[in-house]
Amino acid sequence: MKKIINNADHVVQESIEGLVSAYERYYTKHPEVNGIIYRNRRKGKVSLVVGGGSGHEPLFGGFVGKGMADAAACGNIFASPDPGTICQTAYAVDEGKGILFVYGNYAGDNLNFDAAEEILAEEGIQTAHVRVWDDCASAPPERTEDRRGIAGDVFVMKIAGAACDAGLTLEEVKTVTEKARNNTRSIGVATSPGSIPGLNKPTFELGENEIEYGMGLHGEPGIKRTVMEPADVLAETLYVNLLKDMPVQSGDEVCVLVNGLGSTTVLELSIIYRKIKELLDRDGVMVHDAELKSLCTCQEMGGFSVSIMKLDAELKLYFDQPCFTPYYAKEGR
Amino acid sequence: MKKIINNADHVVQESIEGLVSAYERYYTKHPEVNGIIYRNRRKGKVSLVVGGGSGHEPLFGGFVGKGMADAAACGNIFASPDPGTICQTAYAVDEGKGILFVYGNYAGDNLNFDAAEEILAEEGIQTAHVRVWDDCASAPPERTEDRRGIAGDVFVMKIAGAACDAGLTLEEVKTVTEKARNNTRSIGVATSPGSIPGLNKPTFELGENEIEYGMGLHGEPGIKRTVMEPADVLAETLYVNLLKDMPVQSGDEVCVLVNGLGSTTVLELSIIYRKIKELLDRDGVMVHDAELKSLCTCQEMGGFSVSIMKLDAELKLYFDQPCFTPYYAKEGR
Repeated sequence: MKKIINNADHVVQESIEGLVSAYERYYTKHPEVNGIIYRNRRKGKVSLVVGGGSGHEPLFGGFVGKGMADAAACGNIFASPDPGTICQTAYAVDEGKGILFVYGNYAGDNLNFDAAEEILAEEGIQTAHVRVWDDCASAPPERTEDRRGIAGDVFVMKIAGAACDAGLTLEEVKTVTEKARNNTRSIGVATSPGSIPGLNKPTFELGENEIEYGMGLHGEPGIKRTVMEPADVLAETLYVNLLKDMPVQSGDEVCVLVNGLGSTTVLELSIIYRKIKELLDRDGVMVHDAELKSLCTCQEMGGFSVSIMKLDAELKLYFDQPCFTPYYAKEGR
Repeated sequence: MKKIINNADHVVQESIEGLVSAYERYYTKHPEVNGIIYRNRRKGKVSLVVGGGSGHEPLFGGFVGKGMADAAACGNIFASPDPGTICQTAYAVDEGKGILFVYGNYAGDNLNFDAAEEILAEEGIQTAHVRVWDDCASAPPERTEDRRGIAGDVFVMKIAGAACDAGLTLEEVKTVTEKARNNTRSIGVATSPGSIPGLNKPTFELGENEIEYGMGLHGEPGIKRTVMEPADVLAETLYVNLLKDMPVQSGDEVCVLVNGLGSTTVLELSIIYRKIKELLDRDGVMVHDAELKSLCTCQEMGGFSVSIMKLDAELKLYFDQPCFTPYYAKEGR
């Protein structure tokens, strides 16, 4: 397992420097911490700060930009940013209208973002947060708050960014962002492991012909380990599990993301989407928007996840606002 | 090696169906052949048709859209589209102003696109072509016409698309597109093989700690096989080889693409770019635009390529026109 790095200890720092430098038209790096900051922020609005562990690129830094996040606070590989990094990043984009934090629902992130909010509150900065818990394989429906956040993050950030830009108050932005979160479900299947850069070993093991449904982005246990199956079977299995968990019915409109976990090709994601679309058509569910990309990854992990966000008039309004970030761009409609 | 497919014989067909369906806001599929066609084409202009073998997604279909290609003719995995597919795709977007074909310089593509141009000429349709031969590892400078086309395709298509939209004649579009091609060089390094979907075996072999500089997208031999090296050494080696081949000097402006070959992460591409930018800064070369993405891939191949296009006023004018396709979008400036 070869990783294109210099020194395991400098991976995050060097990669953020490179990313910010490549997209310097849009990004600056916080001078002191690993925060990626949007240059052309809209003024006088609630600020959206996202963040989490590194190693899942382009999540989170890749979604800083127009109509999405104002900044991303980046932790070490698969580790939450510390409260200092979160606070410094938030200060840098504060407009006096409050800060909404959006991040994945992991113990370390919850702890550190909560600590940061306490510090900011002491300084008179109003904050709120929405934890993304879209992975319906990671806990049963009665314990959604124990679920992990995976690729559904992208939809939630999209809605939150548009709501901030629309000039909503912090409380209003939080409410619509929670609705986006509550209307989004994801589930994935792992076909091969990722690795921690520099450690030179896989994050988990899977047999030559084995796959695992519901496995987490860091190798957290899934719901079923089985033999490799044809693409249409993989797609249908995920679809059935998603729909069991989600109040989607004939006549509804949804956004779909088929997300590669790292080494899965656009060709493979396309074959999966073909089947998902066939199933949605069969069930009378209309696709408003679909995306086939590797947006929330775990290094070179193989496999993919399917995320579905159910739209209503309000979510659709915000989803349809244009956005432009280096790794996620939508024309308005 | 697990591939997320159904049947090796249907991989290309099913993936095109899925891709077109996901991005149906922009795409339609040709009813008879594997051609991907842009829905919202500008009228009364030269049409840009790109194409080549499948398996390198998002190349070529992913670059059909606003300010880029009007259509892509798609072959089987790593195989040129046949002349019939090319002709049918060209007919579908013909506006009576002529067709420019842009494709990678491979024997099969050259043969089939030439045959298609002959057929179209017989029907009174004016055509021209620009073959992309950016891979400077694949033949010495005195034989640039023997070089292969790799990720530099993206820059050449960007310029060609903008020139078509600007209302230039076929001859003018061809001339500026050739300039873009002549000003673009790429070189890559492979760290692990890709595979042919369904064949279940790697396209080439590399030892556990081996890499190969200059290896082609289909496993064509490179210029040097050696041991794995730190990211900065890989970046500098490619940079030195590029600059040896390319008339770039202090004061010049360039566009840079650090392109992942399949399973290489954005984190790794960012670390590479950090070094490339340091070297360009040292040499006084200014970066006008940079992109860190996996745009021209060979399935789950590991490694990356660096492409540099030297700008002049004319190329910059066209590069700065906005474009929007599912896998490559630029805001205007």
